[in-house]
This record gives sequence, C-alpha cells and structure tokens, in this order.
Amino acid sequence: MTNPTAAMLVIGDEILSGRTRDGNTFYLAGELTRHGITLREVRVVADDHVAIVAAVNALRAAYDHVFTSGGIGPTHDDITADAIAAAFAVSIGIRADARALLEAHYRRAGLEFNAARQRMARIPEGARLIDNPVSTAPGFTLGNVHVMAGVPNIFQAMVASVLPTLTGGAPLLSQSLRVNRGEGEIAGPFAALAAEFPDLSMGSYPFVQNGVLGTNLVIRGTDSGRLALAMTRLAALFPESLA
Amino acid sequence: MTNPTAAMLVIGDEILSGRTRDGNTFYLAGELTRHGITLREVRVVADDHVAIVAAVNALRAAYDHVFTSGGIGPTHDDITADAIAAAFAVSIGIRADARALLEAHYRRAGLEFNAARQRMARIPEGARLIDNPVSTAPGFTLGNVHVMAGVPNIFQAMVASVLPTLTGGAPLLSQSLRVNRGEGEIAGPFAALAAEFPDLSMGSYPFVQNGVLGTNLVIRGTDSGRLALAMTRLAALFPESLA
Repeated sequence: MTNPTAAMLVIGDEILSGRTRDGNTFYLAGELTRHGITLREVRVVADDHVAIVAAVNALRAAYDHVFTSGGIGPTHDDITADAIAAAFAVSIGIRADARALLEAHYRRAGLEFNAARQRMARIPEGARLIDNPVSTAPGFTLGNVHVMAGVPNIFQAMVASVLPTLTGGAPLLSQSLRVNRGEGEIAGPFAALAAEFPDLSMGSYPFVQNGVLGTNLVIRGTDSGRLALAMTRLAALFPESLA
Repeated sequence: MTNPTAAMLVIGDEILSGRTRDGNTFYLAGELTRHGITLREVRVVADDHVAIVAAVNALRAAYDHVFTSGGIGPTHDDITADAIAAAFAVSIGIRADARALLEAHYRRAGLEFNAARQRMARIPEGARLIDNPVSTAPGFTLGNVHVMAGVPNIFQAMVASVLPTLTGGAPLLSQSLRVNRGEGEIAGPFAALAAEFPDLSMGSYPFVQNGVLGTNLVIRGTDSGRLALAMTRLAALFPESLA
C-alpha cells in the first residue's frame, strides 16, 4: 500500500513580500511524515481570490489531502473561506454552531461580538468544523481540503485536531550518516548504492562547519529492515564517517 | 507601469519530508521586494523529473521570472539541470567554459575532478552561466528561468549575481502600525480605510506578546506620498497605537 499524498497551500501576501517567514509548512511536513502521509507539493499564493481558487482546485484534484493556512480571520484581507466555497461551487454563510461558539467566547472575554468577529462564523455549505482550542474561531474541512489559521500556534492546534481523523500509512523513516567529505567525492559510490535499493530514497546534503566541508547522507523509507540493511552498507562504504 | 512578476520554485525531498526548513524563499522574497519585482507564487516540489518539468513550464508561462533553488550538485538526486532542459526541449551536455571553471577550482584545491564533479558542468543549450563565488559550480539562466543552488549561502550569492541584471520596478514600500487590540476590534475601520486607498495593499497580522493580544497593521505600495497619507489616516484612527 502506498501512503496517502498531500499538498500544503499557504495563503498570504506577507509571506510573498518577505515580511513574514512561513513556519507552518515545516511544521506540517514533519507531522505528516510521522503520520505516514506523503507531502508532495507546497504552494504559496497571495490574498487573491482567483489565485486561491485556482490553486485549491489544482491541488485537491491531484492529491488525497490539501491543507491550507492563512486568511480565515476577521479582517477584509481574510478571503480564504469565500475562495474555498467558490472553488467547490457551494454557498457560504454564517453558520449557527460556529456563531454560537464565537458568541460564547466573546461574552466570556467581555468583548463585543461585532460584525467583523461574526465574519469568522462564515463557513461553506457542507463543511465540518475544525476545533480551535487557542482562540475559538474554527477552521473547517470541506471534501479533502482542510482550512486552517495562519497564526502558528493556532495552525498547530488545528493540525492536532485534524490529523488523528485521517488515515495514515507507514511512517516514513529516515537515518543519516555524516561524512567529512564533499558531495563530489561520495557521489559515485552513493549513486551505486541508491541503484541497489530502488525502494528507498537516498539524498545527500552538503554543509560547511568550522570551515570543513561535509555531507549528510540521508536514507528514507518505510521498511525498517531494508533501511537498516542499506545503512550497514553505507557505513561500510565510508568507514571514517561520524556517528 | 506595473512591476515585473516572479515565482520561486524550491526543489527538494528534504523540504517536503520536514528534514530541512527552507529559508531561500524568505531571502528571495525580501530581495525581490527591494528590487521592485513582485513575487506572486512559490512552489515546492520533490526531486522528481515529471514534477519539476510541470512546475517550471507552468510558472515560466505565468510570470516574468522564475527562480529555482536546489538539485544542481554532483549527486544522483541532483536532477534539476536535466529537468530544465526537458522543460525547454533543448539538449544538455558538459559545457567547455563551465568545465574549465570547475577543473581549475578542483586543481587549486588539490582534489580530483572526477565524473561526479564534471556533472556540475552539464548546462542546457542556450543558457547563460550564473556566477558562484562560493564554490564555483555555476547556476544558469535559460529564458526567464534562473537556476540556483539550494545551499543557502550559495543561493544568496547567486541571487546577488542575477538580480542586478534584471529590470526592476518601483520598490514595494511598507509601513506598519502596531495596536494593542485584536483584529476583530480594528477590522471595520481598517477595511473602510483600505477601500479609500485601492492603490495600496493593507493587511493585518495578529500576535500575542506577554499574554496581550495585538495586531500589526501593514500598508504596502509603491507611491511614498500615498503611503504617508494613508499612514496619517491610520494613526488618527488608532491614536493609542504604539510607534
């Protein structure tokens, strides 16, 4: 059985302008790998209705799951929910259960439940709410698209709400060996080893530390026995490697 | 005149598996903004020939420039140059000038110029080399696609080699105001102000600091006079804001 596939769609002008460095992709990538879902593609698009709709429709057709971050707050630049509804060609409006959650939240906080905040209860027809234990305003799942907040701690809480509901595959395992040689020296024997293990993925990542050139050799796969065998072979190829 | 547009294509399994956190996108986004080129989309794809070819062809048709990072080293998982050649339907082979650069580099270093290292002189037909002052192995520009290394300091050096050769537009300017209120409180007046300045882009970014909820209000545009006018109006709306 091959693992389910996924894509991430980051929505936000602030990422594209260089104002904010996206960290949600890195977080989600690690969580999906542990859960046995293969992240195959990431896209970042602006707060632009047409761009969001096009990306959502391309990605939901190509992968088993799509995770989005950003654009579900109360301000005028938060247009993700409407774009998702448009992508699925369903209606969108204030939903009673989401509105009740938010109303109770703002009542407890002693804050006005004004029109902007009520906007966060706009949910596309047919969606399931995603719990937000941080600040109440929910995300939602529509079809295979999971729509979450961009604020990192809320995004992470929503990922924790969604992931256990998804069927994962075998977690992707990885082991690495660090060698004190440049990529150009190890490339030949490393490629030969990779050809012997077509079921595993082997990558090399050069680095410079304290002025010394080295390479991390990484082997990834879902079968721990095959991974162990390949690592034994790799260590024999480069006996001077560091543990 | 509107500014030229650009897309970034990050190539690498290690980003999608969560092993490595991509920082090249954040770096490029800031540099492009300063240079007056609008970054409109980012994609991350795996070390997969078909995925790279499809992404390159989609992005180079849609934007004025495409910047890629990753996959131009000496190992078997470095397949970007071949994928770019395939995307443009041109041939690829070892190029004499790139080979001469690399041969001299390895001779100076006292290292063997072996087959793996010679692979880094494979350049698609018709490309211009991009200077690599860090480790010599060049990037290249083919059509509107600029192909660069994934290692951050090499990527940054290549961006510095390429950007001065590209015609930029008016740099995107931004100013921000920090207010000690949640997004839900400022959304109404902020949206009204945004509607009065359709030539500017206004975004709001909530944060929590020391347990206090606040929002950064950011206004972006290329006309410094309009930006100053909008900031004056914004400050008047939220007189308690922090400088």
